[in-house]
Amino acid sequence: MVLATAETTTSLDFGPAVALSCRECGARYDLGPIFACSDCFGPLEVAYAWTPPGDAGAAKVTREQIESGPANIWRYRALLPVPADVASHRNLAPGWTKLVKAENLGRELGLRSLHIKDDSGNPTHSFKDRVVAIALEAARNFGFHTLSCSSTGNLAGAVTAAAARAGLDACVFIPSDLEEAKIVMASVYGGRLVGIDGTYDDVNRFCSELIGDPLGDKWGFVNVNLRPYYAEGSKTLAFEIVEQLGWRLPDQIVIPVASGSQLTKIDKAFKELIALGLVEERPYKIFAAQALGCSPVSAAFKAGHDFVRPVKPDTIAKSLAIGNPADGPYVLDIARRTGGAVEDVTDAEVVDSIRLLARTEGIFAETAGGVTVGVLRKLVANGVLDPDAETVVLNTGDGLKTLDAVSALARPTAVIRPSLDAFRTAIADHS
Amino acid sequence: MVLATAETTTSLDFGPAVALSCRECGARYDLGPIFACSDCFGPLEVAYAWTPPGDAGAAKVTREQIESGPANIWRYRALLPVPADVASHRNLAPGWTKLVKAENLGRELGLRSLHIKDDSGNPTHSFKDRVVAIALEAARNFGFHTLSCSSTGNLAGAVTAAAARAGLDACVFIPSDLEEAKIVMASVYGGRLVGIDGTYDDVNRFCSELIGDPLGDKWGFVNVNLRPYYAEGSKTLAFEIVEQLGWRLPDQIVIPVASGSQLTKIDKAFKELIALGLVEERPYKIFAAQALGCSPVSAAFKAGHDFVRPVKPDTIAKSLAIGNPADGPYVLDIARRTGGAVEDVTDAEVVDSIRLLARTEGIFAETAGGVTVGVLRKLVANGVLDPDAETVVLNTGDGLKTLDAVSALARPTAVIRPSLDAFRTAIADHS
Repeated sequence: MVLATAETTTSLDFGPAVALSCRECGARYDLGPIFACSDCFGPLEVAYAWTPPGDAGAAKVTREQIESGPANIWRYRALLPVPADVASHRNLAPGWTKLVKAENLGRELGLRSLHIKDDSGNPTHSFKDRVVAIALEAARNFGFHTLSCSSTGNLAGAVTAAAARAGLDACVFIPSDLEEAKIVMASVYGGRLVGIDGTYDDVNRFCSELIGDPLGDKWGFVNVNLRPYYAEGSKTLAFEIVEQLGWRLPDQIVIPVASGSQLTKIDKAFKELIALGLVEERPYKIFAAQALGCSPVSAAFKAGHDFVRPVKPDTIAKSLAIGNPADGPYVLDIARRTGGAVEDVTDAEVVDSIRLLARTEGIFAETAGGVTVGVLRKLVANGVLDPDAETVVLNTGDGLKTLDAVSALARPTAVIRPSLDAFRTAIADHS
Repeated sequence: MVLATAETTTSLDFGPAVALSCRECGARYDLGPIFACSDCFGPLEVAYAWTPPGDAGAAKVTREQIESGPANIWRYRALLPVPADVASHRNLAPGWTKLVKAENLGRELGLRSLHIKDDSGNPTHSFKDRVVAIALEAARNFGFHTLSCSSTGNLAGAVTAAAARAGLDACVFIPSDLEEAKIVMASVYGGRLVGIDGTYDDVNRFCSELIGDPLGDKWGFVNVNLRPYYAEGSKTLAFEIVEQLGWRLPDQIVIPVASGSQLTKIDKAFKELIALGLVEERPYKIFAAQALGCSPVSAAFKAGHDFVRPVKPDTIAKSLAIGNPADGPYVLDIARRTGGAVEDVTDAEVVDSIRLLARTEGIFAETAGGVTVGVLRKLVANGVLDPDAETVVLNTGDGLKTLDAVSALARPTAVIRPSLDAFRTAIADHS
């Protein structure tokens, strides 16, 4: 574990962030490239001036200030560990993606008010651009020259693209059996792309080793030694949903679970908005979605456990294929505390749900989006979701990255010569 | 040719649009699903109350009104043939994509001020969402039940996605040899996808036949019988560039040419903004970009011709592969009038330029973006572009749709076991 040195601390500018604090024991640390509590090994989180027991008035952030900001995540810079002038830095400026009023899908599922937060509109077409943008600022603060990560695919592309724009080196690690589109995307921006023969969990363990080695000196692993900063980026999904709903918390939200970090931070963001008086407090339920082939959190929820037993992933939803999810226990806790649930769907349901979403809303989601829409459908059918409550479901990635999931089913109706007769015949054949 | 009937005209709401007018002879027609002048066969364009010799003050549009609009093309609804409440209709709400300050690429090419208008951020990841959104409103106005098109790929996906959201049927036509990603995307949203054995120009001719046939009754072919409305959507690229530059015309702009419609409408939009007092008049130069394997306009420009000799396309830039470009003569005219040029690049230069853009700016463009960046580079090298002038280059599509162009070159640096020793060896091998 690397501790922050006095040298790096002097010139740091993390805006409103004042410290790191242990999620388990509350121990506080100076802001640095560290991620685990040296007392209890709990995960570290970013603490702000207003973080309890701090001063809730310290933020002095108003809706009007936010609304006058840029159409990207930097409109929330006063609520993130970034300097005030972050919008002028060279970065991909992700976020402010569409919150789509999904009337067609809602009608088909029997939901009165359904919205899709569609993060396929981000620069590299997944929500990972959000978290990487925050980690990039931390890497700059700590004087790192190389941006790195372990990735199930989307993150690798987000990191290499962000490094390219920022002028940093990149070296990213992925399981070698990823989808072709994710491999190409992770490589095309330059930097080094290293395939690892193994699962994502193997890649992740390897990166933890590398951090302790001189080879990894001055490297910012966005989801390891920069993880406390990185993870804060997921809060912007919640901030945007609340603002786009007209400064209102949704009643119900369905979130995909890989490591569980995103779900945990969305809950944190809702609580921060309430604490800061930016949104009215009201109950909300958080639902977590997994693919059956990698559903350790769902299995634990259904078994009533408060621990998560690791699994070896086997699902087409590769971006969610983390068999040993670091934040799994927190996901269980949040689902139970808010009155939500954790559910899973089969790969066949994932494919069917991708097609359902495309056909009804014109949104082509990657497999992770098939997982959330599939779980949404299952929860409605099982009577777990309230069909009359305002519901938001996340699509965190783009169908173009997981073409294989649907390519066998998404073919031309017919291939013909350019003649009306041929077309008449083809129509007759297919009607 | 179909003329508007009194029946359809009564309930039409095209907002500020008042008529169609012939670009060649100026003859005026009622707004209807027509696209060619019955006198001279010239193309029809949308005319507004302020279109000369109309009243320039009729628009009464201010910068402030536009700036207070939504973060999509509907902020310009008062300058488009759409009803005032268009933003509340079910559509994909495209536009307001990023204008990226490309400092890295500018430095590499020796340009003082370079911006990239990156339309890969649109809902189906190409600029086609803009034009389809306008055509969709026209289809609604005319009571059409099916949305259709001839397409080189991007348009088919944009049409089927828009139809899905709007609740219309779709039947789209593509050359059968398109990129896999474009085929899947055009099919996944539902509707009918028909592959045609032939070139885009064959597909286009077939669609013109179909319009005259009872089979195509009540069909809106977005780029044929709805073309005057559809084409207006390209103006929003120009509107956004000007607003994002701080209400200023760029000195130089590089635009890809397929049919030539986009370039023609960007010029029209600049002129409209000037006429309406929304931007200060100043000279601007328009540069057109083609792939050498389909460069009929570039060939005509270099030969000093004012006509365009059709070619049979042979290039990896399939979205630009229109061998008989309808607006080619207008492109020649605009390039010459503004002091611009038309240039082309080889397929190898296209691939190299895709990688250059990715490596410097973190933007993964499709082949059409490789064409514009390649032409930009060539024009700078040849001294045709002024390196000190403010320059904008368009990226109109997404690299994920043309993976094959770069996939052989965008591979992992190494594939290793998850061990530090293996990584050390791999680094030594590749350094």
